[in-house]
Parts: sequence; structure tokens; C-alpha cells
Amino acid sequence: KHVVLLPGDGIGKEVINSAKDVLNAIAEEFNHEFSFETHEIGGAAIDQYGTPLPESTVEACGRADAVLLGAVGGPKWDNNPSHLRPERGLLGIRKALDLYANLRPIKGFKNLLHASPLKEEVVKGSDLLIVRELTGGLYFGTPSERRDNGQSVVDTLAYSRKEIERIVDRGFQAAQQRRGHLTSVDKANVLESSKLWREVVEEKKSQYPDVSVDHVLVDAAAMKLITNPTQFDVIVTENLFGDILSDEASVLTGSLGMLPSASLREDGVGLYEPVHGSAPDIAGKGIANPVAMILSTALMLRYSFQMENEGKLIEDAVQSVLDAGFHTADLQIENGSLVGTAEMTKHIV
Amino acid sequence: KHVVLLPGDGIGKEVINSAKDVLNAIAEEFNHEFSFETHEIGGAAIDQYGTPLPESTVEACGRADAVLLGAVGGPKWDNNPSHLRPERGLLGIRKALDLYANLRPIKGFKNLLHASPLKEEVVKGSDLLIVRELTGGLYFGTPSERRDNGQSVVDTLAYSRKEIERIVDRGFQAAQQRRGHLTSVDKANVLESSKLWREVVEEKKSQYPDVSVDHVLVDAAAMKLITNPTQFDVIVTENLFGDILSDEASVLTGSLGMLPSASLREDGVGLYEPVHGSAPDIAGKGIANPVAMILSTALMLRYSFQMENEGKLIEDAVQSVLDAGFHTADLQIENGSLVGTAEMTKHIV
Ligand SMILES: CC(C)[C@H](C(=O)O)[C@@H](O)C(=O)O
Ligand SMILES: CC(C)[C@H](C(=O)O)[C@@H](O)C(=O)O
Repeated sequence: KHVVLLPGDGIGKEVINSAKDVLNAIAEEFNHEFSFETHEIGGAAIDQYGTPLPESTVEACGRADAVLLGAVGGPKWDNNPSHLRPERGLLGIRKALDLYANLRPIKGFKNLLHASPLKEEVVKGSDLLIVRELTGGLYFGTPSERRDNGQSVVDTLAYSRKEIERIVDRGFQAAQQRRGHLTSVDKANVLESSKLWREVVEEKKSQYPDVSVDHVLVDAAAMKLITNPTQFDVIVTENLFGDILSDEASVLTGSLGMLPSASLREDGVGLYEPVHGSAPDIAGKGIANPVAMILSTALMLRYSFQMENEGKLIEDAVQSVLDAGFHTADLQIENGSLVGTAEMTKHIV
Repeated sequence: KHVVLLPGDGIGKEVINSAKDVLNAIAEEFNHEFSFETHEIGGAAIDQYGTPLPESTVEACGRADAVLLGAVGGPKWDNNPSHLRPERGLLGIRKALDLYANLRPIKGFKNLLHASPLKEEVVKGSDLLIVRELTGGLYFGTPSERRDNGQSVVDTLAYSRKEIERIVDRGFQAAQQRRGHLTSVDKANVLESSKLWREVVEEKKSQYPDVSVDHVLVDAAAMKLITNPTQFDVIVTENLFGDILSDEASVLTGSLGMLPSASLREDGVGLYEPVHGSAPDIAGKGIANPVAMILSTALMLRYSFQMENEGKLIEDAVQSVLDAGFHTADLQIENGSLVGTAEMTKHIV
């Protein structure tokens, strides 16, 4: 399997090495072969090529079986004009590879729950998956422009029925493999696009009789994630709602540095990256938490390579390293041992 | 001052009486005169007039100095076609009266904080005001329609510079009267409308030198509200972001039944309503919490009638009734006394 590595910026450059180490260990254990190729994206690409997404990066990703991304962004590029900002690289690669399905599993680690802003009795047992549409909606709709000599502005929230169908199918399928419940989030009391969304979900229901479904308005969902996160199994929603709700959900369990994500194309090719950012404040110090990157690698094995056992082994390894008390500086574990990126990775390997 | 009462549905019909009782007490105490006129909106209006917003209601509100609204909605109308749904009445009256500024103060009551899903050390001391644009954006932009024989759909997020300017001004002014900090929430890394929004905020800064400003992306704001709610003073944002974030924020302090809101026109006319809904499950039982409605009335006195002392008196009365341990069934106070809507109101009066 051929994997393209996109370290990106900040701690992305550090944690990407952890992914490689873990994959090499998996290769040895299971007799697989992984080949790697590294390319630039984000700020690093702006510096080197004058664009956050060089053609060479897109081409390499197009030939890959899967892509691992570290993180993009940093203060150096914060005041750039928008086409020269690191996150344009991210948006561009999502669209270029047609990565329409963003999956974010959010599950607490029992020895880290104490760091949650929520009361333990509220957050305990929460285990949810957000399935976010990633290549449509307000992110890519046109027109998106100034008008009337700059006196007004429009953005467009556009979806085709097909785009909605494929992501809703993903949501149902994910629910089938989990606890069998799907929550579709929309704003059907206001938006036409949400009405079509809700219609599609209703139509698809009969194809997935083993999945129970409910519809929740996005404002109510933002409340329920906090008051009762354990009520959710799989949430499926459009791009911008997914952006907001998945970030909201990511802080519930108190361990943002542990959360992986997968962005998938229909044929199984995918891009995998930590939920956390490039953390410029701690970059270059060797103290970044590699777990989100490593768990993203586990998702790659599972979703792009159908290597379920291999993915599970990585997840179990992470859990047992935590159980043994090892943790990076972003976490606290009572009577635990504080280690850096390299040592945390070594223990997991 | 002439006040139109729109009881609406469910517990709206009950709590509106509490508002009237409190206003009558204020009238007596301060020698004011309030006249009242009651009209239908929402489900009640659908039943009686076949529309959620009868012309007669719009006309009466147009003549009023201020409007008090209970709540709209209920299971009876849930399966109606969208133009015959109760919330259409709410959207309609906002637009008809040009109520462009929605203000939602969110502040914990110390003897109720224990009901928060957040840890007390996280939520304690939080006191924020969300200023939401209420008559623009995706809620009212056109086109908003199916296309290609129903195979695709668009909604439009539209703002004029003027619409942005007036709400941003509101945000700055509110911050001046509070702790002097304004957080503008947008998605400027993706949306053209957010870029114009951010530009306007930057332009206005120099007019309000006593206010410090920061820009936070909506996804990050959804996180920070949970991890660090005390960092916020005033948040100003567009319609849909405000819808999501204000509902999210409303559950932080553990007392949704206590939260008022104001929706204002430029000339000071306003519509005031509780943040909570019509609560059909407890309607008609006389147990609804009237505090959100009563505090909405206090906001009316302050914002529409410049009766600052009168508003403050109501707020102090609510606090002292809580301090004395009186509470409705939605709340718990240690060694407190459980009372119904009428008795709670009487104590506050
Ligand atoms: C960086 C930004 C454009 C991006 C998004 O909004 O999708 C990020 O917030 C994310 O969720 O991956
Ligand atoms: C009922 C609905 C249309 C409304 C909105 O989205 O504005 C409500 O959620 C609110 O916040 O007042």
C-alpha cells in the first residue's frame, strides 16, 4: 500500500513520524508492505512553492492508496491574503480528491475524563461518531462574492440530491456497524436544503431497517451534545453544521489531543488527520501528543485498507500505554509518567 | 406605554399572565400606565385564523411600543406543511417589525449552578451576552429553492454592508455598557460574507476605543463556550451562527427556564420572549417557570422604555425570591420550597 505523508506545519511535522513508526511496526508484525512519499501542504508549501497546495502534492495524493496529514497553519501565514492561507490547502485537497465523508469518532478515555469541562456523570460513557459532509454546502457553493460595489455579499449553500444521498448512506452504514442509531441534524424549519436533506433521510430509512433514526435541529443538537452526549450514536450532517458540532463535541471528553479523523472518497481512498491543529506554541519541542495522529493511522488501516485487526491492535496499544500511565504534557494522569512525542510513540510501537 | 401580548402556545399562555402581573405591580409602584392588547400567533393562530401570523397580529404589533411573546409550537402542528407551522409566525413577525438585533444575556444564578452540565469551576462567574443578527443571512436570503426537477437545492446567505454595520454597532454599544470586550464570531476562513463581516468590525473599532475586540471562528467559538465560558463578555454574530451558539450557551448555566431574550428594531421597539419553548408536556398544569418571561419583561422596560430602575427592580426581585428558596418544578434548590407558576409570580410581585 502506498501512503502519501503530508506533514504540513508545526507539530504536524513531528507527529507524522509517529504515524510512520507505527505503520512500520504493523508492517513487520503482519507482513505488510507500506511505501511512503512525503509532500508539502499548507504553510510549508506556501514557503516552498508559493501556494498552499502545489500541483505535485495533488498528483501524488491522486496516486496514493491513502494520505496521512499532520496539521496546517501558524502565525507566520495568518495575515496572508485568503488564497495564500494554509487552510486553503486543506479545502483544496478535500475537493480535489472528492473526500466527501468526514468521520470523527469521539470517545472518552476513562483515565482522562477528569479533564473534561463536563461533569463526569454527564460525559461518562459517551461514544459518538460525527459523519460530516465535506465537499458541498456553503464551503463550495457559488456565487460566493461581493456585490453592489462591495455594499453586499452572498454565499451559497448548494447541494445536489446525490451529494446528500451518498453522505446519508455513509451515516446509515456507520450506524449499522455501531449501536444502530442515526441522528440526522438539519435546520429544516428554515432552510430548503435541510428539507431536501430530511426527505432523503426519510426515503433511505427503509433500506436500513436495523437503524433507528431521529431528526434534530442544529440548535437543539448544540444543546444536547452538552446536556446529554451519551444519547448520540452516529450524527450525520451537512458541511458547516458538521464543522461546528464536531468541534463542539471534540472538547467534551477532555482529550482533544487524542482525537483522529478520516475523510473518505467513495472508492475507499482517504485522508487521515488529527482533529487538533498545528499548535505553533509547542512546535519543535518534541513534546506534542502523537496519539491523535496514531489513531488516525488506525482509521486508515480500517477504512482504506480493510485491515480491521491491525487498526484494532493500534487502538488497544494506545489504551494500554495510557493504562500504564504514560502521557504527554497536554494530559494529566494521576501517578503517571510524563513523556515526549518520541517516547510515547515508542511505547505504543 | 402600549404593550401587545402574544401568548402563543403551550406554557406561553400561562407565563404571559405573569408578565402582566409584574407590569401591573411596576405601574403601581412607579406611577406608570401600561395598556395591553392580546393577539394570536403560532399554533393558536393557525387554529383560529388558518395562518401562524394573522394580519391583525402584525398590525397590532406595528402600533405597539413593545411586544411580549410567550412561546410558539406544539406536537399538534408538527406535521403541518412548512407555511402552516407555528415558527413561521415567529420568523414572520421578526421580519415584519425589522427586529434585527436579538440579545440574549446568559448569566448563572448561584443557587442553580449545581444543575449545570459543566463543572462548577468551569461555569462559575460566566456572564455573557449574545448579540445575534436576526433578519438576514440564510434565514431570508433568496434564492432558496429546489432546482433541476428537485435534484438539487440552494439557500442563500446574503447580507448588505448596512445590515452588518447596524448589528456590529449594537454589539460594540452593548460591550461599552458591560465589561468592554467584544468577540465577533464568523467563518472568515471560508465565507465571503464573513470576510465582509470581519472588515466591518475592523472598521468600526476606532469608533469604540473603549472596547477591546477579538475575532473567533464559529467552530472555535463552539468549543470555547464549553471549555472557558467566562472568557466572553459580548458575542456578536450573524443569524444562523447566533442561533446555534445561543442555544449552546443557554444550557451552560443549568437554568434554561430562567433566560430572557430581546429582539429589537432600530427605533427601540422590541419583542421580548423567553428562550425556552412552549413545553407542551407540562402545559396547562400551572407548573411552568415564569421567570424567563418575567425577566424578558425587565428587558422590555430597559430597552424599549428606558426604565432602567424598573427593570433592575424586577431582576432583584427574582434573585431574592430564589434566595428565599422558592422555585418551580424545573429547578432544584436545597431546602427550597416548590411552588407553581402563580405562586412564584406572586412572590416576585
Ligand atoms: C480550517 C478550516 C477551513 C476547516 C473547516 O472549516 O473545515 C477546519 O475547521 C476543519 O474542521 O477541518
Ligand atoms: C423556531 C426557529 C425558527 C428559531 C430560529 O431558528 O431563529 C428559534 O430556534 C430561535 O432561536 O428563536
